[in-house]
Parts: sequence; structure tokens; C-alpha cells
Amino acid sequence: MAVSVAAHVDGGRLWRRLMDLARFGATEKGGVHRLALSDEEIAARAELVRWGLAIGLEPATDPAANLFLRLRGREPDLPPLLVGSHIDSQPTGGKFDGAYGVIAALECAEAILGAGQRPRRSLEVVAWMNEEGSRFAPGMMGSAVFAGVRRMADIEPVRDRAGMSVRDALERVRAAEPDLPLRPLSFPAAGFLEAHIEQGVTLERTGMTIGVVTSIQGKRTFRVTVEGAESHAGTSRRAERRDALASAVDVVKALQAAIWDEADTVRFTIGQFTVSPNAPSVVPGRVEFSIDLRHDEATTVRALGDIIPEVCARARGPCEVSVRELLSDEPIAFPKTLRDRLAAAAGRLGFTHCELPSPAGHDSRYLSRHCPTAMLFIPCKDGISHNEAESISPADAEAGVRVLTEVAFELADADAVPGSTGGMTRL
Amino acid sequence: MAVSVAAHVDGGRLWRRLMDLARFGATEKGGVHRLALSDEEIAARAELVRWGLAIGLEPATDPAANLFLRLRGREPDLPPLLVGSHIDSQPTGGKFDGAYGVIAALECAEAILGAGQRPRRSLEVVAWMNEEGSRFAPGMMGSAVFAGVRRMADIEPVRDRAGMSVRDALERVRAAEPDLPLRPLSFPAAGFLEAHIEQGVTLERTGMTIGVVTSIQGKRTFRVTVEGAESHAGTSRRAERRDALASAVDVVKALQAAIWDEADTVRFTIGQFTVSPNAPSVVPGRVEFSIDLRHDEATTVRALGDIIPEVCARARGPCEVSVRELLSDEPIAFPKTLRDRLAAAAGRLGFTHCELPSPAGHDSRYLSRHCPTAMLFIPCKDGISHNEAESISPADAEAGVRVLTEVAFELADADAVPGSTGGMTRL
Repeated sequence: MAVSVAAHVDGGRLWRRLMDLARFGATEKGGVHRLALSDEEIAARAELVRWGLAIGLEPATDPAANLFLRLRGREPDLPPLLVGSHIDSQPTGGKFDGAYGVIAALECAEAILGAGQRPRRSLEVVAWMNEEGSRFAPGMMGSAVFAGVRRMADIEPVRDRAGMSVRDALERVRAAEPDLPLRPLSFPAAGFLEAHIEQGVTLERTGMTIGVVTSIQGKRTFRVTVEGAESHAGTSRRAERRDALASAVDVVKALQAAIWDEADTVRFTIGQFTVSPNAPSVVPGRVEFSIDLRHDEATTVRALGDIIPEVCARARGPCEVSVRELLSDEPIAFPKTLRDRLAAAAGRLGFTHCELPSPAGHDSRYLSRHCPTAMLFIPCKDGISHNEAESISPADAEAGVRVLTEVAFELADADAVPGSTGGMTRL
Repeated sequence: MAVSVAAHVDGGRLWRRLMDLARFGATEKGGVHRLALSDEEIAARAELVRWGLAIGLEPATDPAANLFLRLRGREPDLPPLLVGSHIDSQPTGGKFDGAYGVIAALECAEAILGAGQRPRRSLEVVAWMNEEGSRFAPGMMGSAVFAGVRRMADIEPVRDRAGMSVRDALERVRAAEPDLPLRPLSFPAAGFLEAHIEQGVTLERTGMTIGVVTSIQGKRTFRVTVEGAESHAGTSRRAERRDALASAVDVVKALQAAIWDEADTVRFTIGQFTVSPNAPSVVPGRVEFSIDLRHDEATTVRALGDIIPEVCARARGPCEVSVRELLSDEPIAFPKTLRDRLAAAAGRLGFTHCELPSPAGHDSRYLSRHCPTAMLFIPCKDGISHNEAESISPADAEAGVRVLTEVAFELADADAVPGSTGGMTRL
């Protein structure tokens, strides 16, 4: 019966919805600018709600603006199975990061209904709030709050560069969606499934269609502030300057020397770097930059993160430097029972598949602390992501949804979802 | 008679006007944010016009939004003597850079009138448009166009970061000042005098009150663009990245190594540094930064500027780099005849004085190509400028205006202003 459900997946419909959703925040270069809680995301949420209502799903939201579309099960009082991802994007993001997982979940619900089925437990299509963290840092806010990793009071004061707080941005979203019922945060869930593009080249290089995700890298993020003194570019001598840019450049070089490894297993990124006052003839008085540090091994990410303050202090020159840690997430592993279900379904449906770790963070990281969680990847062209050129093939997109639908229906229709919560599991 | 004119300088009135002008664009930390052609500057211009009208000066502007307040001379058809500076500021500038020279010129006119005098030629208080260049680069636009160094067509297309062009910004100013007569650009002038804060520590360290400026450093400015490729911070390996920030940091280090001199005579500043997309978990795809290079010697500024493209290309790593030169100004020297007048007046009035070069650029650089030009400096505390903490003493401010008034009246009342135009004079 499960195979017959997967057979109702409609690849054309899936692709049309992906393209339709990409219109919200579409950029000239074919990418998406759809920051968390922005007008573009609010409009995209409204479209998702319309699509859900059209096939009989019940929309709802929660205090963190997570969006749910419920396919009501035969026993609606059982904890539901959650399936989804996120629809916010990076400032110059692609059409598929996150959006694929949400549209895949919607197609999964429609395929089940199209097969004339209704599982025991409800299946909830979910779009988690602010996975990317590029407007409000750090990311994965909606899933973190839902899973109890953070509290509303932790995220509400966070402000974007224009000074708007998450609290006010959430209120704007709420005001735009007066008809959506509000559900409590952190309601019990039987499990969570997330389909996502790989954002790497493993599947493409090995010619695999389905990746069963074993684990997510550990990640620590920091904000470094270098304080110097503004002075006149034409008059102040180098020896007298407290040039925040010159010191920041030295700090960056020292961090690279301390953190980069020859085997190239560490992911170390300075993605945000902001200079004040940023005027051509003023020696900069202040630089703030971000550090994003990731590794598969908990001990490595811990040790490298711990040396950052000392390395910065050593290289600061005549300026002051301060380091604030924003986020520290240990690596997590997904339960083998669920990984095996995904692999088995892929095999039955005739898709090549393999296991692989996820170097990128995902909402599944936090959901895995709340309920048994699993992820599948599909290939993305040249591994390019967080980029307007992000690209996937329609055939791979459909394959991923077929596997997802098979397993989602199995789990939603089962007595219980196997697998433990894996939040603090060490690799 | 000239000494009696200087005696009518009112230090209290001068200081009150300096403080009043600083209200336009006042920042919380006691500085000024009054970018060229901004609403704050438009309001400050209106206040200057009111002050001028109140003492009988005749306001006017020109197509470059240079602002003139004329004390009509006894022979108004003679080319006038110009006295002034600028009132635009850096984004976090101080109260005195530029503003001192304009308010000093106004006080100079009021002192002459207060003494019951009216010189042969008209004396024009002038505020040149966009000296700082922090909103629209490069700076000294108004004086450059007035002196014929640039054409209106060169400056009109320049845009600020919000995308507004100089052309549109000039139209906004013009619309706000419908009653100001419009004078032609580049009208003949008998001479130009500019009083300014030193923006260095020479006067303070040597205990001098008046600095007679001998020369202005040569200056070249550049814009460097480093193009890499955006990618995902969690997934892309270091070896695969084309990280524009990592390359830009290497380029900056290579430029420092090539340009910094042990004797610390070169002024080399990277004041603006902008990263795209500037998100914590995206490997930067593009960095743009400014270079401001100055030196007293024409050969040095020429040679160091010429090596920049090659040094950038050598250090670019896997990214592309391009270098565009925005400005190239040779060092200039002011005519000795005028310098001697300033020194003689300072001596007669009992102020300590010395000659010194100006490391910073000023509107006088371009005016010196149009008419005989001279500058005087007064001390500024700790040499701090282009900074909200910029500070001067009321006594020094008054001393500078007394010397300025003495010489301005002398020159405006003379048959001719001595001294050649010094535009291309080599040091």
C-alpha cells in the first residue's frame, strides 16, 4: 500500500509549486531574497496556506511563527508526524534551500490524499521560522524554540540591521495572518522528517539520487568586535593610528593560521565584516565580524572555538578586541532505525542511495531533541548553495518526494515512530 | 586701519555661531553627521543665509551648489576676494572641520562692517559643496568644478550608496532654496583665503597659535574590487572556495607590505571596506574597498600609486581583482607672498606662528589653480579630526579669525592680490 501512495507523487505539480514559491522575493539573477519574517516571506506563507486549504489541510501557526498545514489523521489526538523545512532564504539565496523540503512535504500530503489514504496520526507540513539567521542571528530560531533549546525571551530582543526586533517582526506576521489559529509552542510530535538539497557534491560525484543523512556537524558562531579610534586619513601617522581595519585584518590572518587544517576538514568562515564609519578618508574606528566554525567531531569544534578569544587578543595590535559566542551546537547523529527506513524505501522505489553526513546545519538538528528525526538529501548542481545559481533536477526532486512520501505515510500510519531523540548523541 | 578691523572680531559671537551650526546634524556623542547635500546640510545652509542677510550680505549659489554671501565692495565690478571653506562633514565628524573656516569668514565680514569699513572689492563668504567626499566620492567637488578641474558632467552621475545621483541631490538643494540667485560657475576671483583646524599635532606640540600653510600633500585614491564566488559556510571546502574576504585580507596585507615605509611618511588608509552578501553563513562573493594614498612628494605618491594594481593581482589568490583610480592630485604649494602676509599679520597681532605643510586635502588645493590662495591653521586638540571628539579652544578660534580678518581686509582693499596661481607648482 505504501508504494501505491508514493506513486501518487506528481513531479510536474511539485516543480510548478517550487517555481511559484520562488516568485516571492525573486531576484534578477534567478535567485531568491526572502529574509525571515520579511514582507516577501509573509506573502509566500499566504500562498502556502492557500495551497494547503485547497487540498483540505488545516493551517495554523504558533508564537514563534512556525507555520503548520495539517492533514488530519484518523486518530487526530495522537501526536502528529511533522514533515517540512523552512522557506526563508539568504539575502542572495537560491530557489531550493529549505523551500524544497516544505514543498516536498506538501506534495507528500497531496499524494497521500490522492491515493485515497488517511494515516492514523495527523501529518503536519511545517515551515520553521528563520532557519537562515541572516536577518536575525542566529538561525534555526523557530525550530530551536519549538524544541525547547531556546525560549521566546531569548529570541524576541534580537534585532536586524534596521533595528527591528524579532518581537516586532513576529507581531507584523501575526497581524498579516489574523485567520490562522494559534497553537501552543512545543506540542508533542511523533517524529520529524526533513528533505533538503545536499549543498555539497557527494551525491553528484558518486552518482547517487538519495542521501540518507547520518549526522550534522558541530557548529559554533562568534561575533568579534575590534575597537580602535577614528582619525584623519591624511594627517594621522601610522604609528599614532589605532586602525580597526588594520587590526581586524591581522586578527583574521591569525585566526586562519590557528584554525585552518591541512586535511581541510574544518569549515571556518568569516561571512559578515562591517567597518565603521566606512568612509574613504577616515581611519576605521571599529570593525565587527562573524565567525562560523564547523566540524564533524565534537572535540575539534570545542577546542578550536575555545582558542578564538586568545588568538584574537594576540593579534589585536593597538586596538581592543572582544569576542562574544552566539551559538554552540554539538554534532548530532540521527537514529539508525529511521535512517534504515529511508534507505529501504529508496531501495524499494529503485533509487540509488547512500549514507552521508550533513556539513550544514538544519532545523532537524533541534527537532532531533524533541522527537525521532530523520533527513534525506537530493543532489544539487556543483554543490552550489546559499547562492542565486542554486540548481536541482526535476527528476531528483520527484525521487526525493517519493521516498519521503513512502516513509512519512508508513510512520504516520504506524503505532509508534521508532528511534530515540538524538539531541545530545555524540558521534 | 587694518588692525582696527581685526579688533572688531567678536570671539563670543564666533563661538556661539560655531555651536549653533553644530546643531545641524548633531550626534549624541557631540559630533556632527552632516553629509554633503543632505537635509541636515540644506538646513545649515538656510541658517547661514539668514545670518548673512541679517548683517547685509547678499546670498547666492551656483550650479554646483557652492554657497556665497557677498559683502558688497565699493567697486563691486572688481573680481571679489573669496574667504571660506565647507560645512559638510564626515558621517561621524566633528564640529570644526570646514565649519570653522566658513563661520570664520562670516565673522570676518561682520568685523569689517562693525569697524565701519567697506573694502574696494567685494568679499565673498563661501561654503564649497562636498569637500569630504564620504557620501559622493571623491570630495572637494564644489571647489574642483569651480576651479575648472572637473566638469559638472563628471560629478553629476556620481551616486551615493542609496543610489541617489549628485545631479538629483543638487536639484533637491536648488528646490529648497528657490530665492537664491544663481551665479555662473567659475566667476573670476581676486584670491581665496581658507582658515581651518590643523587636523594634526604640530601647532599643539610646538605651542603655536597660527599655522601658515606652505603646501598640500599629493593624493591618489582607488577602488579595489575582489570578486570570488558565494558558497555555503557549512559545506564548501576551503580548497574549493573562492572566498572574496580571504583574498581581500591577503590583498590588504600585501598592499601594507608594499606601501608602508619605515620613516612613516606615507599616509595609506583603507577606510571603506564592504562585503557582499555580508551574511554570517555565506562565504563572501565580493569585497570592495577604498585606498587613500598621500605623500608630500609628487614622485613618491606617483610611484606608490602605480604599483597598486600589480600588488593586488599578485595577492588575489583564487579570486579576480580589479583596481580603478578615482583621483590623482599632485602636491601643491601656496605662494610665498600670501604666506608672508599671514605671518606678518599674526606677528602684528601678537600671536605665535610658524609655517607647516598640510597633510590633509582642502578646497584650497583646487582654488589655488583659479586664483592666488592661502590657508591658515589653528590648533586642534590632540590632532583628532574626522571624529566626533574633534575639539578646539575658543581663544585659538578667535585668534585665527583676527589674522584672517586683517589679511582679508588688506587684500580686498588692495589694487591687486599678490601671488600666482599655484596649481601645478611642484614642491
